[in-house]
Amino acid sequence: MLLQDLGEFGFIEQIAEIAEGDPRLVVGIGDDAAVLDLGGPDLTVVTTDVMLEGRHFSLDWLSPGEVGWRAGAAALSDLAAMGARPVAVFASAGLPAAWPAEQGRALVSGLMDVARSVGATLAGGDCAANEQVVLDVIALGTVPRGQQLLRSGARPGQVVAVTGALGAPGAAVALLKDRALKRAGHPPSPRLRRTEASGPSFGSDERLGPLRERFAHPQPRIAAGRRLAASGLVSGALDISDGLVADAGHLAERSGVAIIIEAEQVPVAEGCQAAAETLGVDPVTWALTGGEDFELLVALAEQDLSDLLELDPVRAIGLTVVGRVEDGEGVTVLDRNGQPMHLSSGGWDHFTAPG
Amino acid sequence: MLLQDLGEFGFIEQIAEIAEGDPRLVVGIGDDAAVLDLGGPDLTVVTTDVMLEGRHFSLDWLSPGEVGWRAGAAALSDLAAMGARPVAVFASAGLPAAWPAEQGRALVSGLMDVARSVGATLAGGDCAANEQVVLDVIALGTVPRGQQLLRSGARPGQVVAVTGALGAPGAAVALLKDRALKRAGHPPSPRLRRTEASGPSFGSDERLGPLRERFAHPQPRIAAGRRLAASGLVSGALDISDGLVADAGHLAERSGVAIIIEAEQVPVAEGCQAAAETLGVDPVTWALTGGEDFELLVALAEQDLSDLLELDPVRAIGLTVVGRVEDGEGVTVLDRNGQPMHLSSGGWDHFTAPG
Repeated sequence: MLLQDLGEFGFIEQIAEIAEGDPRLVVGIGDDAAVLDLGGPDLTVVTTDVMLEGRHFSLDWLSPGEVGWRAGAAALSDLAAMGARPVAVFASAGLPAAWPAEQGRALVSGLMDVARSVGATLAGGDCAANEQVVLDVIALGTVPRGQQLLRSGARPGQVVAVTGALGAPGAAVALLKDRALKRAGHPPSPRLRRTEASGPSFGSDERLGPLRERFAHPQPRIAAGRRLAASGLVSGALDISDGLVADAGHLAERSGVAIIIEAEQVPVAEGCQAAAETLGVDPVTWALTGGEDFELLVALAEQDLSDLLELDPVRAIGLTVVGRVEDGEGVTVLDRNGQPMHLSSGGWDHFTAPG
Repeated sequence: MLLQDLGEFGFIEQIAEIAEGDPRLVVGIGDDAAVLDLGGPDLTVVTTDVMLEGRHFSLDWLSPGEVGWRAGAAALSDLAAMGARPVAVFASAGLPAAWPAEQGRALVSGLMDVARSVGATLAGGDCAANEQVVLDVIALGTVPRGQQLLRSGARPGQVVAVTGALGAPGAAVALLKDRALKRAGHPPSPRLRRTEASGPSFGSDERLGPLRERFAHPQPRIAAGRRLAASGLVSGALDISDGLVADAGHLAERSGVAIIIEAEQVPVAEGCQAAAETLGVDPVTWALTGGEDFELLVALAEQDLSDLLELDPVRAIGLTVVGRVEDGEGVTVLDRNGQPMHLSSGGWDHFTAPG
């Protein structure tokens, strides 16, 4: 069997099977981050997130500084999903030798900026010349003993809820792809042609601007993760990096439950509707399968959610219920009529998804 | 200025200048690893080491399992250089989607094997499909407060000493290169032609075998690092990854001193002499500039060295004095007549060295 047949998650599962336990390893392979007990007052949380040019990002769409920010945000978002407080980030980078040094510094500065925004510092790294830009970010944080949020805690009868609104990065990528196709002489989408025929419109940055900003500078939900962890009311959590449906699938699998998502309840980010009209698509698709939202998806009892939302420091998190946990397995997405939706993309697998 | 003009170490220095301090960061950018104070009984030590196919290794020379072992050994060797005890390793990998899954598992198994050999466990990672094999290994360990070994502690009047013997990986690479050239139809080295004319010889694995094993399965000097750190007698240390002369240069620079190395005192690994005769070169060159030895280079007072070598648990380390620390800067290598040697290669810089 080839890696592309096994898939990213199949491969990780095989590795988890051959990896050995260790009494200091509280949480090992398979969650958003590893949790280690090094004997201190808090547990230590570590995660690593690799970004490869051509697969995870394109320098046609992002500046080096934005690549650094996004890679850092992706790793720090895993700490948020564990309820951890970030301490330090590390970076291993492969950078083209012919790059101006300034561009290399900009990439690292982007990483330092997002780390600083959540109280972490760049503590080390490694670098080497490479034609393809490679950036692996390691984020290390701490969580008070017993407060770590796991993927394995969702229980039937609970609701699932998300922080923030979803779909902006998906919409930004769709607009960028459409623009690239257009420039390459391919026909733009039918709706786009209509819009152009009737006026100026696409090509201006009005639609793309704010969406692109969400795509280029995602903000890891550290404060939300900490508050949810400290409340003691959340029993299952992860961050939305592969897409809501795919990540709900990870939560369902690790918890041994089924998750039902009601598409109409999913909060769609500002600007997605207008972008969807331009491209002639349904914006909820981006919110369901776009990925890289870096919001949190949590499972908790409905009554606990009400209690949680009454606490002032938590209200600011703005949790929105998007579905429920049931006995069974897998994820079902229901449309406004309560009928199961068939989604063309079930999320992102880094071994099988197109580059 | 381009990254290739600035070089790996110039770039890291620039990053260190813009990185911000943090009270929890005991040792930041510029040593073998970062040291963090997370409030526990020990300090936390973290390092990252990226290995890129075509730059750091070739799959013509190493199996996937050996690539995993070497990448792990390189990261763990940085922990040894800090006097730390390893706890966990993490891996971010880019692997060809068309690889048999077995090959991917073998690569990770090699990493797990070297980690297990020093009491550490694979705790997590990330992976994605990539044409070029990319492997970033993060190693995390602990060191008792105050015992961390730093690059900045060498003082004039001290001696510098190394664990083990050097040059085996350099010799292995030279033999492998020679063999590759030969297979490509290029003329082999003059000495090699002579050997061949007089009998069977090269091509057999007799010479290459044990050297290749040292190259493919380096053993990080964790026990030695711990013993040296616990003795409290070593004031400066790092691991030899870029080559003895280059790494002595890092020690000299970080300590603000000059280091004199006497080439004749440098212990050359078994098998290098025979390989050198085959290729018609001086084996000490591999010991001085070959790199990837993953032995430790330490600075300490001569009297302390004598005391140290009388301690039974330390005697096994087998420290060999290779030179001394003086006022000034830079590294001078003296030949048997006390004359400065001119080395064609001053060591390894990952931005400027050939891939």
